[in-house]
Amino acid sequence: MREKGISKAVISRLPRYYRYLGDLLDSGVERISSGELSERMKVTASQIRQDLNNFGGFGQQGYGYNARVLRGEIGKILGLDKVHPMIIIGAGHLGQALGNYGFDKNGFKVVGVFDINPDLAGMKIRDVSVQMLDELPEFLDNHVVEIATLTIPRDAAVGVAEMLVQNGIRAIWNFAHTDLNLLLPDDVVVENVHLSESLMRLSYNLTNVVDGDRKDGHSPDSKKS
Amino acid sequence: MREKGISKAVISRLPRYYRYLGDLLDSGVERISSGELSERMKVTASQIRQDLNNFGGFGQQGYGYNARVLRGEIGKILGLDKVHPMIIIGAGHLGQALGNYGFDKNGFKVVGVFDINPDLAGMKIRDVSVQMLDELPEFLDNHVVEIATLTIPRDAAVGVAEMLVQNGIRAIWNFAHTDLNLLLPDDVVVENVHLSESLMRLSYNLTNVVDGDRKDGHSPDSKKS
Repeated sequence: MREKGISKAVISRLPRYYRYLGDLLDSGVERISSGELSERMKVTASQIRQDLNNFGGFGQQGYGYNARVLRGEIGKILGLDKVHPMIIIGAGHLGQALGNYGFDKNGFKVVGVFDINPDLAGMKIRDVSVQMLDELPEFLDNHVVEIATLTIPRDAAVGVAEMLVQNGIRAIWNFAHTDLNLLLPDDVVVENVHLSESLMRLSYNLTNVVDGDRKDGHSPDSKKS
Repeated sequence: MREKGISKAVISRLPRYYRYLGDLLDSGVERISSGELSERMKVTASQIRQDLNNFGGFGQQGYGYNARVLRGEIGKILGLDKVHPMIIIGAGHLGQALGNYGFDKNGFKVVGVFDINPDLAGMKIRDVSVQMLDELPEFLDNHVVEIATLTIPRDAAVGVAEMLVQNGIRAIWNFAHTDLNLLLPDDVVVENVHLSESLMRLSYNLTNVVDGDRKDGHSPDSKKS
């Protein structure tokens, strides 16, 4: 595939390019130079050119980038040109929030929500009714599901994740306080979101960092050097 | 201060050490060698020793690390030994989820929640009643607030953030789809959490990454190389 050999650092920046290009199109801008994009994103123009050249480069000398074409290409690379059916395990506050978030506009469609609390059975999150977790294996037999979002306590997460993997799930968006990627087979992709750790980084910066060294937090993963 | 000159990469790993050390204590383990910690965290023992040596090193030859002491020291470095009063702007699903999350066990205490929707006025999130946003400046005059969490739409976020800064807020935990750090004064610390981008990275990995290159997602910021 064409992306082969592209560094994780580049890949991790693509969603941000995708967002900025969407903002540009929303404000009526159809083409942009690497210099202008650099100004908006506070990334060097040379970094932008290097990043985008990884994908064959969509810019033309003297014209700049066609924002619509470039966004479309980045979207394809990120897999956003397809619908990704998603389920949410854990219909508590965070599960409800993610179910209502509107990720479907990027192709992430919530097709099922599961919990173990019978009080939540039948509750609607948008147009999806909460089902009980013991109905999940049968649901997975009868529906295409690509991504499982886990918004359940840490102690339950490992067992549920193993059950999901046994039932064919290959992508887990994990909000539980554990590094599921270390516990699952290699062919399962995991993206952990540890909200507490994000808040701790904010606390650290608030407590320790001196002026002039502070404006480095443009995304959760932009902090690594 | 002793943390001076420590790289952001090291700092960004500290919350993860903090979490693992807490897990160890929960399971009754009071001391651990860098080798054992390495095994659990899937980080090399040498990396662990290097990271922790930045803070004077809390290990003893032949004994390993005292998990309780080390966790306490890392907690202090992260500012977790103090209470950080926090407000939430935006009492929608995500704001409610964060208000109910339980960050107070790490010292992040929600002292106010604000929205512009009069239907939400007076709604309780734990023991805090939702107030209207126009009451916020007076609230800030009368209460100590360190951190403002923004769970509001992108178009509202910049204006609200500027108002917060004018009223003395110096730390923003931003969930809006915009890079607030690029728009605010240098002495304001911002931690952006872009959930959509996290989901896009998962989608990319699901779509593109080949076996053996997948187990790299142990936290939102662990993906950078």
